[in-house]
Amino acid sequence: MAGYLAGDAVVTLRWQEAPAPGRLEMIDQTRLPAVFEYLSFDSAAGVAEGIRTMIVRGAPAIGVAAAYGVALEALRMQDQPRAAFDAALERGFELLAGSRPTAVNLFWALQRMRACRDAHGGTSVEAIARALLHEAQLIHAEDIRINCQMGEHGAVLLPDGARVLTHCNAGALATAGHGTALGVIRSAVAAGKRISVFADETRPFLQGARLTAWEMVQEKIPVTLITDNMAGHLMACGEIDAVVVGTDRVAANGDVANKIGTYMVAVLAQRHRIPFYVACPLSTIDLSVASGREIPIEERAPSEVTGFREAQWSAPGVQVRNPAFDVTPAELVTALITEKGVVDAPDEIKLRSLFGG
Amino acid sequence: MAGYLAGDAVVTLRWQEAPAPGRLEMIDQTRLPAVFEYLSFDSAAGVAEGIRTMIVRGAPAIGVAAAYGVALEALRMQDQPRAAFDAALERGFELLAGSRPTAVNLFWALQRMRACRDAHGGTSVEAIARALLHEAQLIHAEDIRINCQMGEHGAVLLPDGARVLTHCNAGALATAGHGTALGVIRSAVAAGKRISVFADETRPFLQGARLTAWEMVQEKIPVTLITDNMAGHLMACGEIDAVVVGTDRVAANGDVANKIGTYMVAVLAQRHRIPFYVACPLSTIDLSVASGREIPIEERAPSEVTGFREAQWSAPGVQVRNPAFDVTPAELVTALITEKGVVDAPDEIKLRSLFGG
Repeated sequence: MAGYLAGDAVVTLRWQEAPAPGRLEMIDQTRLPAVFEYLSFDSAAGVAEGIRTMIVRGAPAIGVAAAYGVALEALRMQDQPRAAFDAALERGFELLAGSRPTAVNLFWALQRMRACRDAHGGTSVEAIARALLHEAQLIHAEDIRINCQMGEHGAVLLPDGARVLTHCNAGALATAGHGTALGVIRSAVAAGKRISVFADETRPFLQGARLTAWEMVQEKIPVTLITDNMAGHLMACGEIDAVVVGTDRVAANGDVANKIGTYMVAVLAQRHRIPFYVACPLSTIDLSVASGREIPIEERAPSEVTGFREAQWSAPGVQVRNPAFDVTPAELVTALITEKGVVDAPDEIKLRSLFGG
Repeated sequence: MAGYLAGDAVVTLRWQEAPAPGRLEMIDQTRLPAVFEYLSFDSAAGVAEGIRTMIVRGAPAIGVAAAYGVALEALRMQDQPRAAFDAALERGFELLAGSRPTAVNLFWALQRMRACRDAHGGTSVEAIARALLHEAQLIHAEDIRINCQMGEHGAVLLPDGARVLTHCNAGALATAGHGTALGVIRSAVAAGKRISVFADETRPFLQGARLTAWEMVQEKIPVTLITDNMAGHLMACGEIDAVVVGTDRVAANGDVANKIGTYMVAVLAQRHRIPFYVACPLSTIDLSVASGREIPIEERAPSEVTGFREAQWSAPGVQVRNPAFDVTPAELVTALITEKGVVDAPDEIKLRSLFGG
């Protein structure tokens, strides 16, 4: 694994100053764990394509990447006349906004970048570009800090010895670092608790098998891989003590959109009286949608379901559905873990109060 | 697909008389749908290995194959002295009984073959071998007839236009023909009903993607493939009207052991008030176990979960669990579909009465 040293913290994305005007490097998450490699990006279009093809994935990481995508476009165009600069930047915003529909962090980050551009609209293109890069770096740094705060709040919820099920990858790879759901687990381990992890493999893209398992193995946190259809059996056998997942968007009423299959885990957790926690930075809460029914669910390519990459095993001629996310109703959520603290039994009043109103 | 003509009925296993003393041919289900090929078997050890490696799978098909395995061993040894014949046959019974632990049809079929051998114990080895072959062919023919009877009883339960979810493959390939769960669907289609099928891919062995989808495509029954973690989302969206699955063993109280993931589907079906039907020949009911807790659950190799065949995608160093079956409690079963009719809300009294006691 060129470029990777065991024990290193996982650096999902990093800004490189040189050569000027700088570039964004991101781990190619489509190739992990077989190949550990950074890819380099120098435009909004490139970052948008990287998000669409899931070189980078995970709601918070997508938000950070999109912010850098805007900054890259501004830096790339800073020698151009103002009209061309403005047009390219606007096109960059559009490409990035169209890359994936479900995770709201993407739109939250783009909104911050738009506000930054507007605030510096009266200055030079170079000054706008510098401001946008600064804003992206701020979003980047904030994400790591927020994940550590969530981790501390969430770690309290996991008892010593807990066997924790997680779905998909809400780890360092899904964020700028530390992770949301896996951040809670990391913080619990750092606090001296003995935690073991069950990782759903998370078909079709196998983020659990490839990414969550990889992160945990790197840090020597005990991790057991299962297929998605085994979680119910293990719960029935009394082998799961808690569930912690991430989220791509939380509606005002507390409904949680997350990776396909999360809803099934939540239903099973309720049946078995196992707490179901959602690690959720405030940037993932979308008060503009009343309930999960209004959250758009991305439908991806059939070839993801009929096989995995070049290994295609399904019967030719079969039809396919491939919704990438589902919605877990708030009634199934024991608590949201945010950077401002733990929100038990989330509802609209509690969520609005997080934003001070 | 050498040897296969579209529109042919699927012949999972077949007896070939020539060359003497005959042989068993079975479709290699590990290679479907990419390769359609029959493998030839001439001993109990060979059939036992074929069952263990899942060249043949599905509870009823395993039972039929095991019966032929005993007959093959007798035919193979019929020129030997009686002591050697008896020893080889006994060893054959042991190998077959040790091939897979969960499906009870295997033990049911071996019990019938033992009774047949014992009934002919006073005759010549040639006569015993002939009787065992006859018994295996009887079990074979009965399985097809029983599946057609279950199909007729079960077809009544599916309304015209029903969208039916199934898990794993309980089709012609899991039996001697027609299938159990897919037999119900086939019979409903034959009765003129418009049925469409959702097939769970059924990790880790992908029987849904490879076998169920293939069977339905061959017969032009509309089939949509999903990953196992999508069923809950589709139910929540109102896209599933009924669930029909097969089973590997039903306990006296009505608890159902079936392919891993069945329990999760049943829990979701209950939440969404969707009927959950289990197609279950009487040979699958095991009155000797009081509840599902007593049914042994086979644990298979980690490499099935860390990838699929040569495609291995998981993080090196991860631990794995691979239970091949789970138990669905009777309370979640709307009805068992048997060759003697439909048993609503199965319990011990109803199951015992099926056997006339």
